[in-house]
Amino acid sequence: MTSEEWAVLVEENGKTYVVELVDQQVKIKGLGVFNPHQTLATVATGERVEIGQKEVKRAAARLPELSRGMVRRAQTIGSKDAGFFVAKLGLGSGDCVLEAGLGSGGLAMHIQRVLGTTGTHITVEPRNEHAEVALENLRRSSSCRDETPNHHHIEGTVEASVEQIKAFADGFHAVVLDLPEHPTAIEATADLLLPGGRLACYCPVSSQLEHAWEACEAAGLTVEWAGELMEREWGRASKGGMRPVNGPFGHTAFLLVALRT
Amino acid sequence: MTSEEWAVLVEENGKTYVVELVDQQVKIKGLGVFNPHQTLATVATGERVEIGQKEVKRAAARLPELSRGMVRRAQTIGSKDAGFFVAKLGLGSGDCVLEAGLGSGGLAMHIQRVLGTTGTHITVEPRNEHAEVALENLRRSSSCRDETPNHHHIEGTVEASVEQIKAFADGFHAVVLDLPEHPTAIEATADLLLPGGRLACYCPVSSQLEHAWEACEAAGLTVEWAGELMEREWGRASKGGMRPVNGPFGHTAFLLVALRT
Amino acid sequence: MTSEEWAVLVEENGKTYVVELVDQQVKIKGLGVFNPHQTLATVATGERVEIGQKEVKRAAARLPELSRGMVRRAQTIGSKDAGFFVAKLGLGSGDCVLEAGLGSGGLAMHIQRVLGTTGTHITVEPRNEHAEVALENLRRSSSCRDETPNHHHIEGTVEASVEQIKAFADGFHAVVLDLPEHPTAIEATADLLLPGGRLACYCPVSSQLEHAWEACEAAGLTVEWAGELMEREWGRASKGGMRPVNGPFGHTAFLLVALRT
Amino acid sequence: MTSEEWAVLVEENGKTYVVELVDQQVKIKGLGVFNPHQTLATVATGERVEIGQKEVKRAAARLPELSRGMVRRAQTIGSKDAGFFVAKLGLGSGDCVLEAGLGSGGLAMHIQRVLGTTGTHITVEPRNEHAEVALENLRRSSSCRDETPNHHHIEGTVEASVEQIKAFADGFHAVVLDLPEHPTAIEATADLLLPGGRLACYCPVSSQLEHAWEACEAAGLTVEWAGELMEREWGRASKGGMRPVNGPFGHTAFLLVALRT
Repeated sequence: MTSEEWAVLVEENGKTYVVELVDQQVKIKGLGVFNPHQTLATVATGERVEIGQKEVKRAAARLPELSRGMVRRAQTIGSKDAGFFVAKLGLGSGDCVLEAGLGSGGLAMHIQRVLGTTGTHITVEPRNEHAEVALENLRRSSSCRDETPNHHHIEGTVEASVEQIKAFADGFHAVVLDLPEHPTAIEATADLLLPGGRLACYCPVSSQLEHAWEACEAAGLTVEWAGELMEREWGRASKGGMRPVNGPFGHTAFLLVALRT
Repeated sequence: MTSEEWAVLVEENGKTYVVELVDQQVKIKGLGVFNPHQTLATVATGERVEIGQKEVKRAAARLPELSRGMVRRAQTIGSKDAGFFVAKLGLGSGDCVLEAGLGSGGLAMHIQRVLGTTGTHITVEPRNEHAEVALENLRRSSSCRDETPNHHHIEGTVEASVEQIKAFADGFHAVVLDLPEHPTAIEATADLLLPGGRLACYCPVSSQLEHAWEACEAAGLTVEWAGELMEREWGRASKGGMRPVNGPFGHTAFLLVALRT
Repeated sequence: MTSEEWAVLVEENGKTYVVELVDQQVKIKGLGVFNPHQTLATVATGERVEIGQKEVKRAAARLPELSRGMVRRAQTIGSKDAGFFVAKLGLGSGDCVLEAGLGSGGLAMHIQRVLGTTGTHITVEPRNEHAEVALENLRRSSSCRDETPNHHHIEGTVEASVEQIKAFADGFHAVVLDLPEHPTAIEATADLLLPGGRLACYCPVSSQLEHAWEACEAAGLTVEWAGELMEREWGRASKGGMRPVNGPFGHTAFLLVALRT
Repeated sequence: MTSEEWAVLVEENGKTYVVELVDQQVKIKGLGVFNPHQTLATVATGERVEIGQKEVKRAAARLPELSRGMVRRAQTIGSKDAGFFVAKLGLGSGDCVLEAGLGSGGLAMHIQRVLGTTGTHITVEPRNEHAEVALENLRRSSSCRDETPNHHHIEGTVEASVEQIKAFADGFHAVVLDLPEHPTAIEATADLLLPGGRLACYCPVSSQLEHAWEACEAAGLTVEWAGELMEREWGRASKGGMRPVNGPFGHTAFLLVALRT
């Protein structure tokens, strides 16, 4: 599980760095200036190493580590909601997936992880400054895997990119939208779904969920499920026994899944 | 997305049948006696067909449909928790996964869906009457996909099967346990994990979560996350607006993820 | 705790009857025809008695029993949300409370329970068919208590009843609104609050919560808290240990509390 | 709503001070040295006043303000759970309530608020350093109300105080326990309940809930409800619409209510 090109380093406090193993001095924010290849080439997964003032542990370059060490610009879809989409849409090897609204690429990393070498992933994002971050995160995670799906990125809004999208695939098993406004995107993409394919939306506020629902029905889709997934962490009490930890409530957004029958 | 060997049929009320397309009279409980090949060979995904007294719609044979139409014996791990495990363990193409406590195979179907052709899935189950159901569900879902991972099934307890398991793989990226008692299974399997690999437990009651936690620490694993995922469905109110639906609370079990560092 | 005028009878399955102890034959739906005074006068709290075909147990005529045995017409505010309002508004002896939108009187019963003999409760309801049910429920619960606050009921909308309301009280420590539309009622009643008094809204859908919030701010009130209270019942698993029961999710409505500073 | 003896002062950030209106220089942590009577006697509820470097607003001395400005030693039962107990136990004027495990008196303040002048409240606490804090909080809240129930405090464990408790009341409508271990306290107090009375427990971890359940059944009580109340705050998104706020999950403890039939 040790990539030859990238290393994941984790501090005691969980802070995670994803470092390219180039043979030259580089500056990594938080770690300082060092030569990754020379410093890390002989460090195995699970071993500790000192870099600058810090002791870090080399970790496997698996999806959870790569997610934690992501370059971030915007808030991103986390593993809770990503896993829900993967399971509810039934994503897996060979699927053809369209994703509009890339953010920092958090969901995209989860999608690519399960598409195998035969799957196809089309991403669309109008804001170039987001796409750059997301594409860097996808580049890293692809480098750390043997198998990577076909990936095409389109700069623009999904509404204006339908013809380009069609050029890459005859139809999609899944469409995932994470946008400020879903209705026009739903209208534009519903017909790209294959029969039996599903469209999913990620809606930060409850009124968006309502608008997405209405737009799906107007586009001839059947809403299978709408709602939210609440992640609640539990911990051990100091005197024994388990209780919910006093951490933040794990809501992130309202989710919707609609089916093209 | 139309399998040549299996068809998925859905009633108006959502009841789902997974039917093998054999060319002979068969009796399907709920649909009656008919010849699936003759009745369904020319029915496309999305088309309706009358069988006996009922009108059903042919659906795509994707994971959500196959899950809904599963042969069931025991309560099974659903898509909410399956998706969470897939995402938190970072499962994907090429991974080597050990699963003990197969139940009806609900989680196994989700795992196999994302392992691609290069992944390996070892399942262990001591109760033969459960394994039979689970293996039938896996046979169906494999038939409906082009790509299937290597799968080996072992009859027995995981504690007694360690040598057999080792014969199939040099180490595992993930171990998933859904058992009445986790501690002995954790002790037996923790060392099968590769460095950076993760072990997950599915615990119906909160005291099991505590015991699993303790056993993971005793086995040298680091608990990354323990808790629960609450699925809450929302619906549209009759006068407009959105509200949580009055359905059952979507708790199923307490989940734990531990890392071999 | 035995009322001389009313008796509470509980079936094995929990079904609860509130029966006036008149000395004549009456027909109680579910129990049949019998003379309550003759049948029940000598039955103490906790004793069983046979009525018609059924065996019932006489229970104390406390608020939980009276709530369970309420005459119902509309869905009513339950103990979870009633308790939250009582606590967040700090209701107690001597308070002056205005309640608009009586429903079946479920919240009103909780409010009157805590106001003592010196408190004042003004209720407003435009739909006479609801008020009749609610007033019957309040009559019963008053009869079962030694202490009852001053209560005045006004038929009409709260917007049209402001002058009448002012005739009963110089100002209110609390205003509680359970209405299809809150903004005009908030506008009409905000000035009835004493400095330091609080206004609360009960909003079935999330968009109502937003409208109530905006109307409170427009009326010069400060929103102290908005959100929901989720009641989750736990039970014992058959093999030991505790887990959430598979019952309905205890959401009922979104609640808002605003302060007149 | 202005107490003549105490004043509540609130900073812009919500920090709340409860100040006795004595006519002498006092030092209030956070506000500095000043003469409360001279500074505040003419300041009405809702008015601002400068004290030292700070501008504060005088607030009504109602329960929510007194709770926020409590002297604290231990974590205390908050308004969410206090309101639930008040409603599920049906507490109100004239009730006789036993409370063991006073903590800082947070629940006690809510109980006394609703008992009127005819109710009776017996509190039991073995740790004197907690009782002192709680009794100070109760003294304040009593001073700010016209109506106060009969209150007797017993220093000791509830198990050792049964005879003393009986001297104050012939039986209780409610018993509330917030203790490290509930079983022996349940055994000791179940018989103090009047028929139809209820016993409630506050259990930080889930295994305590199970032990309390078992002890209630062993003592001949019927568990009516066990579970938890989750408080989730919602807020307005910057671009409009409502969403759960990213604050802490409002779990505090598992609650249990049992009935003496």
